[in-house]
Amino acid sequence: MADDEVTVPGATPVRPAGPHRDLAWGRWGDPADATPLPDALGPLLEQALGVRRPGAPVPPLDAARPAPSRLSATARRDLVAIVGDAHLRDDDASRARHARGRSTTDLLRVRAGDLADAPDAVVLPAGHDEVLAILRACAGHRVAVVPFGGGTSVVGGLTPDRDGFAAVVALDLRRMDALLDVDPTSRTATLEPGLRGPDAEALLAPHGLTIGHHPQSFLWATIGGFAAARSSGQASAGYGRFDEMVVRLRVATPTGTLDVGRAPRSAAGPDLRQLVLGSEGAFGVITAVTVAVRPAPAVRAYDGWRFPSFATGTDALRSLAQDGPTPTVLRLSDEAETALNLARPDEIGADGAGGCLAIVGHEGDAADVADRRARTADRLRALGGSPDPDAGPAWEHGRYRGPYLRDALLDAGALVETLETTAFWADLPALYAAVGDALRTTLTDLGTPPVVLTHVSHVYPTGASLYFTVGCAQADDPVAQWRAAKAAANAAILATGASISHHHGVGVDHRDALAEEIGPLGVAVLRATKAALDPDGILNPGVLVP
Amino acid sequence: MADDEVTVPGATPVRPAGPHRDLAWGRWGDPADATPLPDALGPLLEQALGVRRPGAPVPPLDAARPAPSRLSATARRDLVAIVGDAHLRDDDASRARHARGRSTTDLLRVRAGDLADAPDAVVLPAGHDEVLAILRACAGHRVAVVPFGGGTSVVGGLTPDRDGFAAVVALDLRRMDALLDVDPTSRTATLEPGLRGPDAEALLAPHGLTIGHHPQSFLWATIGGFAAARSSGQASAGYGRFDEMVVRLRVATPTGTLDVGRAPRSAAGPDLRQLVLGSEGAFGVITAVTVAVRPAPAVRAYDGWRFPSFATGTDALRSLAQDGPTPTVLRLSDEAETALNLARPDEIGADGAGGCLAIVGHEGDAADVADRRARTADRLRALGGSPDPDAGPAWEHGRYRGPYLRDALLDAGALVETLETTAFWADLPALYAAVGDALRTTLTDLGTPPVVLTHVSHVYPTGASLYFTVGCAQADDPVAQWRAAKAAANAAILATGASISHHHGVGVDHRDALAEEIGPLGVAVLRATKAALDPDGILNPGVLVP
Repeated sequence: MADDEVTVPGATPVRPAGPHRDLAWGRWGDPADATPLPDALGPLLEQALGVRRPGAPVPPLDAARPAPSRLSATARRDLVAIVGDAHLRDDDASRARHARGRSTTDLLRVRAGDLADAPDAVVLPAGHDEVLAILRACAGHRVAVVPFGGGTSVVGGLTPDRDGFAAVVALDLRRMDALLDVDPTSRTATLEPGLRGPDAEALLAPHGLTIGHHPQSFLWATIGGFAAARSSGQASAGYGRFDEMVVRLRVATPTGTLDVGRAPRSAAGPDLRQLVLGSEGAFGVITAVTVAVRPAPAVRAYDGWRFPSFATGTDALRSLAQDGPTPTVLRLSDEAETALNLARPDEIGADGAGGCLAIVGHEGDAADVADRRARTADRLRALGGSPDPDAGPAWEHGRYRGPYLRDALLDAGALVETLETTAFWADLPALYAAVGDALRTTLTDLGTPPVVLTHVSHVYPTGASLYFTVGCAQADDPVAQWRAAKAAANAAILATGASISHHHGVGVDHRDALAEEIGPLGVAVLRATKAALDPDGILNPGVLVP
Repeated sequence: MADDEVTVPGATPVRPAGPHRDLAWGRWGDPADATPLPDALGPLLEQALGVRRPGAPVPPLDAARPAPSRLSATARRDLVAIVGDAHLRDDDASRARHARGRSTTDLLRVRAGDLADAPDAVVLPAGHDEVLAILRACAGHRVAVVPFGGGTSVVGGLTPDRDGFAAVVALDLRRMDALLDVDPTSRTATLEPGLRGPDAEALLAPHGLTIGHHPQSFLWATIGGFAAARSSGQASAGYGRFDEMVVRLRVATPTGTLDVGRAPRSAAGPDLRQLVLGSEGAFGVITAVTVAVRPAPAVRAYDGWRFPSFATGTDALRSLAQDGPTPTVLRLSDEAETALNLARPDEIGADGAGGCLAIVGHEGDAADVADRRARTADRLRALGGSPDPDAGPAWEHGRYRGPYLRDALLDAGALVETLETTAFWADLPALYAAVGDALRTTLTDLGTPPVVLTHVSHVYPTGASLYFTVGCAQADDPVAQWRAAKAAANAAILATGASISHHHGVGVDHRDALAEEIGPLGVAVLRATKAALDPDGILNPGVLVP
């Protein structure tokens, strides 16, 4: 790839076959895939959590009435001149759909009829140059810009501070959905940011290649979002995090184009890719992402293993992460999550077989998977594990379904949300205890004692992440209720010396905690970088940068 | 590791047993290890390169007379108040020793009696707080500060621009040489920056642990330098680059302390560690480095393999890097380097067995090494390789000795220097041709036709590095001669879209090329970061930041 190329000369960009599909209004995913509340769960919610009444329903989209658009006629005209009339949308439904992401508080506010975060218009650029022009125009009109990929942020990444801006536009990247280039020799692919996970994989499949990035949001989130938020997929043990896959980025900023990444690794100063990765649209708009790709695996085998306790299971995962063999997928539920298995919604409430369930997956060619799977099994037995034959396929079946269950639980009147953190191995037991205690204490004090389920979701030689799922009855003000619980969890995370997020990102929700995590000099670096690239501060104001 | 800890409470820092050893004056390493010029090489130099007269000798250190120190009495007094009288040195010898690094032009300028880059004083802090105080004092006195670890920079990392500063001090980190903490559960170790490679390994050995970072400079370079310059070791295929090993950094800046890294990986915004790694002392002084460590390998086996051509050998390395098995050490010399084998100085001039030599090393426990070594051998045979039984041990014997041979060649009147770059696999053949041609054309035009030897020194799934060794007769002004060659090589690297450095870093020598590589917005980010952390610009002025 020569300096000024993102596409190979003559290469034709390839795009997904089907039309763009919107996320369900006020809910997750595709309405056709909605998960009804398992029958066993109703009595359990009432008895265990004290859920007494259903939650507020999602108002119909055609009744959504955001406040009148504040986008001025001149700004609108300038934006239409860039993208064309068909690609600026300021109807109520389009604005409402772009109001927020998919955190539980985002969903609760939609259910409460709160559309205060709706952008004043939605702009759909066709490519890098249009993004550059939009950013220049918006800077001139003092219009804030919210880059919008899959719309799946769970940390307030799509709800910027509006103070001081004439208007806010969502920059919806859905039209930038091409596979631009495949380099089979270097095993890289260059993708536009608006490509959703399955579409990216479908375009790479004819080349026999895969990215292998499969977060729970995989079906709806986009390549640009994976990069901007430092996403990590369920198969990170094998394929690495998304930030580890990215080798090159093109970024449109209000001050011009930033191209970073001329080699896998370099000593040409700081790795500026790692400053763009995790920048969450606050420094620029990622318009092309070159990632490492691999041969698509012929075989995918997911096995369940039971451990006598979370401690012994955690030690087993640490052993694999440090000394191998390394599976492709590796995760471990604690006793509570194993008993109330959210990975198998149809079994919720069933009595677990006890202990802690690990999911251990291997992907690759048949011989490689057979070899690694056998070696991993030997090791896990030696570390106290025993096989659970049904758990692997059940996890695979449910791996992307958690958010649908959340919708059903919100309908039923429960409050359900997740949060995650990460630390070095030595600190993991204290982190596990502190966050769980903070959530239980806070929500119990509010009169809504919760269940807290935890799993180790990603492992590294030096540490791991913890992923918490919290469920309780909705209080009268469930948004305030969750915020109190979340604040207590954040404080526990910071006090333990852990990081405020392993893969959800920062957004608005974690901004103040980030400031505490990286300290005043870290904040100064973020602010200086933003000022250099976005001097008018129009990009996602209030997101990420304290 | 809680937020405010770098050491475990109560842990006693452990330091190297022996006294600090200075690098030889104007040469590499320890004079006792100096390599005489192999007998076979004399005639070869004359016949092949036209070397007609010996190079300028290194003047004796006790004759070194830098210009009078410009450090003011008040600045000197303030610095002495911080470190104590014994730890500020402004004698001629101390100043001369800290004048430069160990690039060939650095050495040639010493041989030419040029001490213009000598600092006005050398300050030896005992710890983080003293570094903070020194930076504050120097900012107040407008004194530039050059962080000084092993002094092995080959890119002008120790020769800052002096314009506009009242004086320059070298901040020699030799007293900050403790192993601060070992966390056996997380497999991390926290080290001070002044620890040299062998000392760090010796302090970890009683724990049964290793870092596994072995660049050619290993015997003399320091932990802080490895981090500041994004070093990469000869065993990077197995252990990773140094920047991939670092999980936490403490940095002293003129504006305070920056602590980054609370977990192996995080989504809490951009990875600020990757902004410190590669910052080359221009943003702050790294005062503690926490790295991933591993069990020390019981077995180290280095094998030689011959390939019919550089192209087939490169394809074989790419196959291993992309599809495994992955050795711990993996490198491949081109035909010229194989024939004139710098890894075996005693064999220089011997007729090579032809083809291209690869070094393929495996480190680990005995069973693991046996298994991987056998699988690698099967794969390399299938890829066209054939074993070269003597080459592995010979490479191991010579792996750190190249710089000694350079001294002998400079004595003899040859000009010898190395440079390196990195790109994606698809671009490697063009890069190899362009850089080699640029060096040959430029030096031939100057009347000194060179030999250019190349090897693939580090591999990744998506690309690799190329390392060039150039030898020719010294012209009348060998510094200008090399600068012309280097400029042509840099231009070729940039035109090919490759990176200006894989592991040597930026320093002053690559600063302008870096500006071209990262573009004006990349430069703006570096400048903004420096301004935020070092508002008076006292840290290594002119190094890294254009």
